[in-house]
Amino acid sequence: MKKVHVYVTLKRGVLDPQGKAIQKSLNSLGYEEVVEARVGKYLELQVEEGPNLMGRVKEMCDKLLANPVIEDYSFEVEEAIHS
Amino acid sequence: MKKVHVYVTLKRGVLDPQGKAIQKSLNSLGYEEVVEARVGKYLELQVEEGPNLMGRVKEMCDKLLANPVIEDYSFEVEEAIHS
Repeated sequence: MKKVHVYVTLKRGVLDPQGKAIQKSLNSLGYEEVVEARVGKYLELQVEEGPNLMGRVKEMCDKLLANPVIEDYSFEVEEAIHS
Repeated sequence: MKKVHVYVTLKRGVLDPQGKAIQKSLNSLGYEEVVEARVGKYLELQVEEGPNLMGRVKEMCDKLLANPVIEDYSFEVEEAIHS
């Protein structure tokens, strides 16, 4: 079993009203040093081992996990810890 | 200027219906090796340098960015790339 971490972010230039709201809220709570906030998604997948794991995760991102028109993604694979 | 990456995840044991939906969708698209998906948030903050940056980011997470009742968070600080 492998654990895959996927990070999905809005492309540079795409407006992020949720991030803007978070930045303004932080500023009004007294954290005036925050000049920008951008919000993305973080996914953890547990995947059974098989051939071409990297390629298949890339396909999952392109088809379902990210919207390639407005989002970028990256991912990394780690050995899952047995518990 | 520093760039701060914040990862917010649901605590283990908290139901994640969005993650379950993603897992089932991946399975029905033919990615049957995916046995679990959990969804979290990923935030990128641009922060002006100042004293006690780590402590202040921790406060921001506790007060606004994460819900400590049901969520865990972690963060890391990097030098922002000048562009």
